[in-house]
Amino acid sequence: MPNIHSEKDLDFILYDMLDTEGLLKTERYGEHSREAFNQILETSARIAEDLFQPHAAKVDANEPEFDGKKVTIIPEVKEALDAYRDAGFPGALFPFEQGGMQLPLTVAQASGFIFGAANVSTAGYAMLTLGAANLISSFGSQAQQDRFLSQMIEGRFFGTMCLSETQAGSSLSDIRTKAVPQEDGTYAITGTKMWISGGEHDMSENIIHMVMAKIEGAPEGAKGISLFIVPKIMVDEEGNLGDLNDVKLAGLNHKMGYRGTVNTFLSFGEEGGAVGYLVGEPNKGLSYMFQMMNEARIGVGLGATSLGYTGYLHSLDYAKGRPQGRLIDAKDPSTPMVPIIEHADIKRLMLQQKSYVEGALHLCLYAARLVDDIATTDDGAEKKDMELLLDLLTPIVKSWPSEFCLEANKIAIQVHGGYGYTREYPVERFYRDNRLNPIHEGTHGIQGLDILGRKVSMAKGRAVELLIERINKTIVSAKADAALSDHAEALEKAVGVLVATTQTLLGAAMQGDVARAFANATLYLDAFGHVVLTWFWLQQALKAQEKLAQGAQGEDASFYVGKLTACTYFVRYELPKAVSSLLELAKLDDTCVSANPDIF
Amino acid sequence: MPNIHSEKDLDFILYDMLDTEGLLKTERYGEHSREAFNQILETSARIAEDLFQPHAAKVDANEPEFDGKKVTIIPEVKEALDAYRDAGFPGALFPFEQGGMQLPLTVAQASGFIFGAANVSTAGYAMLTLGAANLISSFGSQAQQDRFLSQMIEGRFFGTMCLSETQAGSSLSDIRTKAVPQEDGTYAITGTKMWISGGEHDMSENIIHMVMAKIEGAPEGAKGISLFIVPKIMVDEEGNLGDLNDVKLAGLNHKMGYRGTVNTFLSFGEEGGAVGYLVGEPNKGLSYMFQMMNEARIGVGLGATSLGYTGYLHSLDYAKGRPQGRLIDAKDPSTPMVPIIEHADIKRLMLQQKSYVEGALHLCLYAARLVDDIATTDDGAEKKDMELLLDLLTPIVKSWPSEFCLEANKIAIQVHGGYGYTREYPVERFYRDNRLNPIHEGTHGIQGLDILGRKVSMAKGRAVELLIERINKTIVSAKADAALSDHAEALEKAVGVLVATTQTLLGAAMQGDVARAFANATLYLDAFGHVVLTWFWLQQALKAQEKLAQGAQGEDASFYVGKLTACTYFVRYELPKAVSSLLELAKLDDTCVSANPDIF
Repeated sequence: MPNIHSEKDLDFILYDMLDTEGLLKTERYGEHSREAFNQILETSARIAEDLFQPHAAKVDANEPEFDGKKVTIIPEVKEALDAYRDAGFPGALFPFEQGGMQLPLTVAQASGFIFGAANVSTAGYAMLTLGAANLISSFGSQAQQDRFLSQMIEGRFFGTMCLSETQAGSSLSDIRTKAVPQEDGTYAITGTKMWISGGEHDMSENIIHMVMAKIEGAPEGAKGISLFIVPKIMVDEEGNLGDLNDVKLAGLNHKMGYRGTVNTFLSFGEEGGAVGYLVGEPNKGLSYMFQMMNEARIGVGLGATSLGYTGYLHSLDYAKGRPQGRLIDAKDPSTPMVPIIEHADIKRLMLQQKSYVEGALHLCLYAARLVDDIATTDDGAEKKDMELLLDLLTPIVKSWPSEFCLEANKIAIQVHGGYGYTREYPVERFYRDNRLNPIHEGTHGIQGLDILGRKVSMAKGRAVELLIERINKTIVSAKADAALSDHAEALEKAVGVLVATTQTLLGAAMQGDVARAFANATLYLDAFGHVVLTWFWLQQALKAQEKLAQGAQGEDASFYVGKLTACTYFVRYELPKAVSSLLELAKLDDTCVSANPDIF
Repeated sequence: MPNIHSEKDLDFILYDMLDTEGLLKTERYGEHSREAFNQILETSARIAEDLFQPHAAKVDANEPEFDGKKVTIIPEVKEALDAYRDAGFPGALFPFEQGGMQLPLTVAQASGFIFGAANVSTAGYAMLTLGAANLISSFGSQAQQDRFLSQMIEGRFFGTMCLSETQAGSSLSDIRTKAVPQEDGTYAITGTKMWISGGEHDMSENIIHMVMAKIEGAPEGAKGISLFIVPKIMVDEEGNLGDLNDVKLAGLNHKMGYRGTVNTFLSFGEEGGAVGYLVGEPNKGLSYMFQMMNEARIGVGLGATSLGYTGYLHSLDYAKGRPQGRLIDAKDPSTPMVPIIEHADIKRLMLQQKSYVEGALHLCLYAARLVDDIATTDDGAEKKDMELLLDLLTPIVKSWPSEFCLEANKIAIQVHGGYGYTREYPVERFYRDNRLNPIHEGTHGIQGLDILGRKVSMAKGRAVELLIERINKTIVSAKADAALSDHAEALEKAVGVLVATTQTLLGAAMQGDVARAFANATLYLDAFGHVVLTWFWLQQALKAQEKLAQGAQGEDASFYVGKLTACTYFVRYELPKAVSSLLELAKLDDTCVSANPDIF
């Protein structure tokens, strides 16, 4: 085991690629240091290795159980989360004065990446709590923050996000949970919520549910959704626990993966109404949620990356240690077998994984860095630009790792052969866990509609312009390097095709043919992602060239050559798929959208 | 539930596409009739629905257990297999005089397809037994057939294939199991065998292991492998059971899927040597196995297709019944939601699945029909041609469904959204089950080397010529139909690229650059498969056009329009991927093959 993450690569991405040290110049993060950041990551790795990874297989095989009264979760999950809490991680992102660590998101996500790679389902409780705490921190009143948030930052209260209902998954505007104003200013919440991760357990003193509901008489659809705090156990103004609120566990969902994260079906208000506290203004719940969506979606992308990355490392270990067969041009059976990493097919499978997972990590942390820059810049125009760029990239950050790090997990099994198909090795679990990511927090299809139907045309296409400006800078630098100029030209051409196809699709939409223009938005999303990932790979290759030119030796040199090779792999084996797909998309084919459901 | 298979589509493929009735003109199958074939399929469907499907989820959740003494399997598995036996299916392929049904492989595989779709892991026992019985039937002595085969045909004895060892999976030439000749003409077998499906259980009176071992002093490598019959329980010449043979169950493997098929680690000869009976001549074991490989690999492809197909039907059912959201150009939240099959993205996901699974079914049954034609033709030259064609197609028949029907299962989950990720719906199980198929019976990578390294160049490329001749006939017919001429031209162009790339790769190999020429053989295999599948889809579209011209109405018309739409989908969305990939392959890139393992 270990094989949780590569310290060397994380360091490369954080400092060489993303200049995380640059954040130390800001007022907000000025009290930190590179050493302090590294200590956070080392502590993360230690706790992840000692307490998260060891029970990952066990909790998968022994998932949470509900006997009608109580949810039972193997004790190792609480032990791991207690250690996580004791080390202060629930407060990673919150300011010092609130008792937090005041870390940049970039570093906090790097830490989360390590925990996710060690045990994604135990880490899930922490991620959910962070999401709920973020909402209260951003939109809750001071009183709500005093009553609930402080205890979430301390890691004593956990949190959940209660959006979906059985009839309303992707279509959130169709939720039916009701909120009726009470005389004391609270609301009586009634309804059921589906797919609630962390919805019931005894591992924290309380659970704070962030619940989407419609106030009686609210407008139909998304514009009538409000956000409420609904604690499992009532909390008084001093923060003391009181009676149980009217929230019942109606049942557990049993999933293919992510089994340690208890997933619940909750019933609110069976005894008259759960007490809910309105967050912010009525009917703005969905807009609040969307404002937090970028960070939540970075979290999903990073979770997918964690699984892809650890799977890659495990398969690498296996490939280097497993002798099997002989090279294709040396078949003499009396010679010893070679480790399978010597076989061309395995090398390709390793490069494919490497390019996916290391690229995805760069992508996700780049997005986190944008969040940090947005939060710390004083320049209004720059801030606006970065917000646009982040908005544009968010569906890619959520989706690309979800799709391609799942593919990496599929490959990790293949590299293990029959062994990878057994539960003796962890790669089949990663594959099962990762299958969730293209589904939750906005399905893959929803992300496609988000990027093509909304993001590329927002602010008159300014976001795409900004992205291309940045990509072009990298292309110019790479063209100046003989070893990278072909790659730069390939990316330049791909960007040209992306722009042309985008114009064609948006042009059709402007002329009213919206259904056809957006019919294959998911394919557009995948191809756009591949173009963006090529950009990240070219950045990594440029830095690798620089380091090699500076005389990197030994393991360092191998590391940088690895980056160059993965970049070459991505340009030659992956990018052409995107170009081919974009060229097809520009034909505005209507085969799928015009198909009559009767033909199936 | 049901959603096991589509009777209409199976009928279309068997009779309209493959002219299965044509086999009735042969002496071997002349006593059958179309009605008799259909009755076989109806009986299969009834038993599959009544006894195979109902326990599929249960046996997945309650896999076989070994307490150190005995393997326990839930009783429903035996009940299903007993009904299968009582209906005579173990003898499907064997001649009337041996007590069999004397069915063509085409029909037997269609029946197996239904059982596999209902419950792939219970059907596994039958498929393994058939494989073992085929070996004895083809290469065993009359005495061996009398002693063992007859009871396998009756379904009283089950069989296994014991090839792999822990250190020898893909690299069979490295097996170490030993066979020492005894004075009575038998051999003493010692060694261990890994991944043996069906290796131990009490569901049959006996288990006949077909074991690969090396006779003392045999040549090294593949040329020193012999094949042995090693019964679990000794059988005398009258067929009566005697003492236990020296075969021990050393442990069970616990897999991600296919959980109902007990998978074992067997130890032979711990007490001095298991009694083994040499099949055929010494040192010819691997060649015997290879002679049966085509049929075994059709079986794997068809198993993958079963899973993909049933997943497609389940997701179709869900997509038609699940209301969610509104059409992209009609978003008023006061209007009712539409079934998700109305959404363009879902229609694409359905067409993708449909084109994969219905195409794969055609491919596999086409290969089975070739086997039948080879077995029944009197024309030596034609027979030779068909053998070449079958040899060429076999890696595609094994691999393409394994890869793309797994992808179909992934999509079936996506269509179900969060529900698909739970064990309440069967699609996650299909996805887990199907993940095995790219691994066993020759990994995906092995199949790539088989087609590029062996099949396309055999008989001076005659097999490829034969395939292209057949494809060209379809292209000529399709060009004459205005609705299909674009598709025909696209296929023609793709075939041209395939041929050119093949020549480039083989040319490089001939010049000694074998490692580079074959480095990306797996990608070549996938692309070749896509070209072949386009051909099958064009055949289906031609027939659909014919039926529509003849005035098909109502459901029939929808069915044929569905075929045309799936063909269009495949030509426009899938074929371009293959063309793009083939064009890249022709560049003979050496990024992967020349990568130094140290870079990872």
